[in-house]
Amino acid sequence: MNQYSSLVSEEHILSCINKYFPDQSHFITAGRGDDCAILSVTSPLCISTDMFIENIHFRHSYFSPEDIGWKALAVNLSDIAACGAQPIGFTVGLALPLNTSIDILEGIYSGMSRLAKQFNLPLLGGDLSQASELSICITILGETHAPLLRAQAQPGDIIFIIGQVGLAHTGLQLLEQQGTKAIELYPKSCMAHLRPFPLIHEGLALSKMAKSWSQQTNTPHRLALIDNSDGLAQDIPRLLGKGKGADITIPALDHEIIQFIESHYTENEYSPDLHAVIGGEDYSLIGTCSPNFGAKLNMVISNLTIIGSVTDSEPILFNGQQMQGFDHFRGNYINPSNKL
Amino acid sequence: MNQYSSLVSEEHILSCINKYFPDQSHFITAGRGDDCAILSVTSPLCISTDMFIENIHFRHSYFSPEDIGWKALAVNLSDIAACGAQPIGFTVGLALPLNTSIDILEGIYSGMSRLAKQFNLPLLGGDLSQASELSICITILGETHAPLLRAQAQPGDIIFIIGQVGLAHTGLQLLEQQGTKAIELYPKSCMAHLRPFPLIHEGLALSKMAKSWSQQTNTPHRLALIDNSDGLAQDIPRLLGKGKGADITIPALDHEIIQFIESHYTENEYSPDLHAVIGGEDYSLIGTCSPNFGAKLNMVISNLTIIGSVTDSEPILFNGQQMQGFDHFRGNYINPSNKL
Repeated sequence: MNQYSSLVSEEHILSCINKYFPDQSHFITAGRGDDCAILSVTSPLCISTDMFIENIHFRHSYFSPEDIGWKALAVNLSDIAACGAQPIGFTVGLALPLNTSIDILEGIYSGMSRLAKQFNLPLLGGDLSQASELSICITILGETHAPLLRAQAQPGDIIFIIGQVGLAHTGLQLLEQQGTKAIELYPKSCMAHLRPFPLIHEGLALSKMAKSWSQQTNTPHRLALIDNSDGLAQDIPRLLGKGKGADITIPALDHEIIQFIESHYTENEYSPDLHAVIGGEDYSLIGTCSPNFGAKLNMVISNLTIIGSVTDSEPILFNGQQMQGFDHFRGNYINPSNKL
Repeated sequence: MNQYSSLVSEEHILSCINKYFPDQSHFITAGRGDDCAILSVTSPLCISTDMFIENIHFRHSYFSPEDIGWKALAVNLSDIAACGAQPIGFTVGLALPLNTSIDILEGIYSGMSRLAKQFNLPLLGGDLSQASELSICITILGETHAPLLRAQAQPGDIIFIIGQVGLAHTGLQLLEQQGTKAIELYPKSCMAHLRPFPLIHEGLALSKMAKSWSQQTNTPHRLALIDNSDGLAQDIPRLLGKGKGADITIPALDHEIIQFIESHYTENEYSPDLHAVIGGEDYSLIGTCSPNFGAKLNMVISNLTIIGSVTDSEPILFNGQQMQGFDHFRGNYINPSNKL
C-alpha cells in the first residue's frame, strides 16, 4: 500500500493493529493474517454489520480520532446487545484518505481497542484501502443461548427501556451548532453522542432471564428487544411488529435535555416530548415481555424503566399523542442506521 | 434514508434486496431485518472481510453495475475458497452517492445475486449509507471440516496452482488503456478482471482430500492454500511462510497474454515471465503439500498444475530468476487486497 508512504504505510497500519488488538481467544483456531480467521462456535451465532462514514455518521470537526474508533465499534456492539448476546469478535474494513496521519490512525485504533477490551473482544481480520473519505465497516459476531428478537409482543405485554432517551440527540444538535465547545456545557449529552456505551451486560442479563424463565415454565420466551438507534417513534413500531399499538409514557428526561430545550427553543416551537420521541442514537435498549416476566426485570437490571404496554391495534401513543419522527436539524446529516 | 428520494429510496433498496437475495438457509434461525441475523453453526467457522471501492478497486468507465456486484462478492468468496470452506452467508455494507440511480443499484444487486446463487448463498444483513463514492464492504462466512491455512510447507513439498496466472492483470491493463473496447479483442483477460470466478469447488475438494488423507494416515494434514490476489511474487512468500524458498516454473500463459505482450511491448522491455509473476487478482489458488499427497491431486482437480517445490531457505526463484512484484501500470491504481 505504497500510496500511504508519506504519512501512513501499510506496515504502520499492521503494527498499529497488532499493538492495539489481541488476536487470540478461546473461540479462535486461527486468527487474522490468513485468508480467513477460523472460529469454533457451537452456540447460535449472531452477526451484524454497520458502517461509520465521515460526514455522514461523524465529523472530524468534533469527533476526536478516539471517538471515531470507539463509536464505530459501539454501534455494532449495540446490535449484539439488542440480541442478548455475548460479543466474540469483529472484522474491520477501513478506508482511509491519502492524507491520513499516523496520529489519526493510532487514535482510531486506540479508541476502538479501549472499547473492545471492555469485552475481551479480538479483532478477527478485515481489509484496508485508500478512499476519498474515511469509512469504517465493522462486522461483529456474538453468541447467544436465548436470542432476543423483535416482534414477539402480544397485547397486554409491558414495554420497557434500559438507559437514557434523547441525550445523544441533544449532543448531536449541540455539537453541530457549537462544535467541541458544547462538551464543557453539556458533557453528558455530548458524550452520549460521541461515546455511547453499548448495553451488552444488560442484554445478556435479559437473555439469561429469558432462558431460565423459558426452562421453568416450559414455554418459549417472548421477550423482544431492539436498540434505540433511530428514536422511539421509529424503533418502537419495529420492536412491536406490524399491526400492534402501544400506550407509552415518555420517560423522565435528563436535566441537560430540559436545559437545552429551554435555552434553544421558544415555548411551543419544539417540545421535550417530541425531542424524546425523535431522539435516536442513544443505543438504549427497548423491549417487550409478558407482565409476569416484567415484574422481575427491575430486580436484575437497575436502570430499567417500564414505559407502557402493548395494545392490539395501532396507533402508538406517546403521552397520549401520535407522534412522528421529524427533525429539522437532521436535514443534511444522516444519522439513522439503515439496517437491511 | 430520504436523501435518496430523487433517485433511490430506502424502500427501493430494501425491495431490491428482497427481490435478489434469499433470506433462508438451513443455517439461518433468524434472517436479516432484526438487529442481528442468527445462525446455527457447528463446524469451524471461517470469516473474511473485503472492501470494493470506486476508483480504487473498480471504475465505472469499464465495470458495468453487474460486474461491480459480481466482483465485490467474488473477491470475498475467493478467501473462503482459499480456506477450503463452504460459504454459508454474507453481509453487505453498501455506501452510495446521492446520485445513484435505481438502474445502477439493480445492476449491482443483480450481478451479486447471480454469483450468490451459484453457491445458494443467503444475504444475512448489512447496512446502507450515503457516501461520496460507491463502496461495498462484504463479510463472508464459511464452514469447513479441514481448514486449509498458509505456511504449512516443509522443504521438499510440491507447489501447485489451480486456475490461470496473469489473465486478470492483462485485462486490467487493457481496460485501463482502452476501456470496454478491450472486451471484444481480449474477452478472456477482460472477463478475468471483471468477473473472476471463485474456486470454491476446488478448495472444497482439496479440503475433503486433506481430511481423508489425515484420517487414513492418522497425521495432521499439511496442505497449505492461498488465493493469488496480489501476484505470485507477493503471494508465494505468504503461502510458504517465513524463511522458506522455492523453485518455481512459471506455468504456461494463455495466448491472450502472449498476444497482449507482443502487441504492447518491445522485446526486453517487459517479459511474459515478469507479467505472470506480478499478475494479481486472478483469484487462482496456490498451494503446497507433501509429494505423496500431491501425486493424487490431478486425479481430483483437472485444472491443477504442479509448478515447483519448496526449498529450506530463500530465495524464491521463478524460472531460475529472483523477481519482485513491480508494475509501472499500477501507479495510481491500488489493486492488491490488503488483508489484516
